[in-house]
Amino acid sequence: MADLNELKKAAGVRAADMIESGMFVGLGTGSTAAHMVNRLGERIQNEGLKVTAVSTSWSTTLQCRKLGIPLIDLGEATHLDIAIDGADEIDPQKNLIKGRGAAHLLEKIVASMADNYIIIADSGKKVQKLGEKFAVPLEILPGAIGAITYKVSKLGGTLAVRMGAPGKDGPVISDSGNLIADAKFGIIDDPEKLDFELNKMPGLLGHGLFIGMANKVILATPNGIEEF
Amino acid sequence: MADLNELKKAAGVRAADMIESGMFVGLGTGSTAAHMVNRLGERIQNEGLKVTAVSTSWSTTLQCRKLGIPLIDLGEATHLDIAIDGADEIDPQKNLIKGRGAAHLLEKIVASMADNYIIIADSGKKVQKLGEKFAVPLEILPGAIGAITYKVSKLGGTLAVRMGAPGKDGPVISDSGNLIADAKFGIIDDPEKLDFELNKMPGLLGHGLFIGMANKVILATPNGIEEF
Repeated sequence: MADLNELKKAAGVRAADMIESGMFVGLGTGSTAAHMVNRLGERIQNEGLKVTAVSTSWSTTLQCRKLGIPLIDLGEATHLDIAIDGADEIDPQKNLIKGRGAAHLLEKIVASMADNYIIIADSGKKVQKLGEKFAVPLEILPGAIGAITYKVSKLGGTLAVRMGAPGKDGPVISDSGNLIADAKFGIIDDPEKLDFELNKMPGLLGHGLFIGMANKVILATPNGIEEF
Repeated sequence: MADLNELKKAAGVRAADMIESGMFVGLGTGSTAAHMVNRLGERIQNEGLKVTAVSTSWSTTLQCRKLGIPLIDLGEATHLDIAIDGADEIDPQKNLIKGRGAAHLLEKIVASMADNYIIIADSGKKVQKLGEKFAVPLEILPGAIGAITYKVSKLGGTLAVRMGAPGKDGPVISDSGNLIADAKFGIIDDPEKLDFELNKMPGLLGHGLFIGMANKVILATPNGIEEF
């Protein structure tokens, strides 16, 4: 049986091999996405593949610089041919929870620009309903933390500001300078409705529900790649 | 006929006189709101009124400090008894366009926390339909400016990044560190739909359509105060 890292790598390689010369490409963040970015770096090196990429985090930007993957500033892009990213939970309708790595605000901007948005993951990320294992990560303007805590509680959820990352006292701060909090709703029976309610909250700058965005999921299972 | 500043002051004073001792109060931003804040400062000084206030901008915060109005950090508040603010356009359903002063992200957080959200304006702000005079101000994460420009154009609008404020080269930067851009849609026939579409755009951190939020409008006209 393949180990978890090998599964992630298999999914990442499969997705990186979908990229063609001349494409504008969005690059996700996280341990599975990192395999995809590594493979893209290899293809640029070995095949002379020409791409223009945008990054979803400082983490991925630093990896691209090491590998010689040419990046443009995210703000310069209007439209991407493909974007490839991981996810924390994936339901059968390809709806996602993302944001374990606190990159979901930029990741959603990139996803929203892509003609073809590909999710790569190991099979442990598949769930029947979102919320089975993960809370919904939120990115919150510091001044709105009281308001959003109250509004999440009115929706039946509980909010925990993400704390205690080594290397910095106090709360986790996102690449855009905001608070990250995890909103626990339990099993999410109607993700479209929750997406709508969260989108309406002023000061909630981004959230980790990605509804109707993914075009394809590449899932690495112990028995091989499964796509849907 | 009263001059414009006198009209703004009359509306501001009327609203400030609605505040009662013990209330949690949200204080807006702009030339009309500034009259209300001045009057609140007077009442605290002269009547010993006790309030706890939150501010929607650096502009209002500095004014409160001068006047001795006690502020708590916006993030500490979960709920307000009353919030009072100006607006740039007001339609007969009390829907608003706000954001000429680039404070609309924090203003909307404060509005969303208030039991009673009062709009004060001179009668020149009244329109039959939103969009008659003003564009819709947006607050945009710098990395999303390309994506949002493209998406606004798909909705039939045009976007202009707000530039050229004296005192700083290049674009206007909001109190939260983001770009401000004005989205021109012409007359807005269905503000609820536009609100929904804008709420869905990742990287659009806040916008100046305030739909179904205002409880009361205090409009100063040359013939006296009109309320609706």
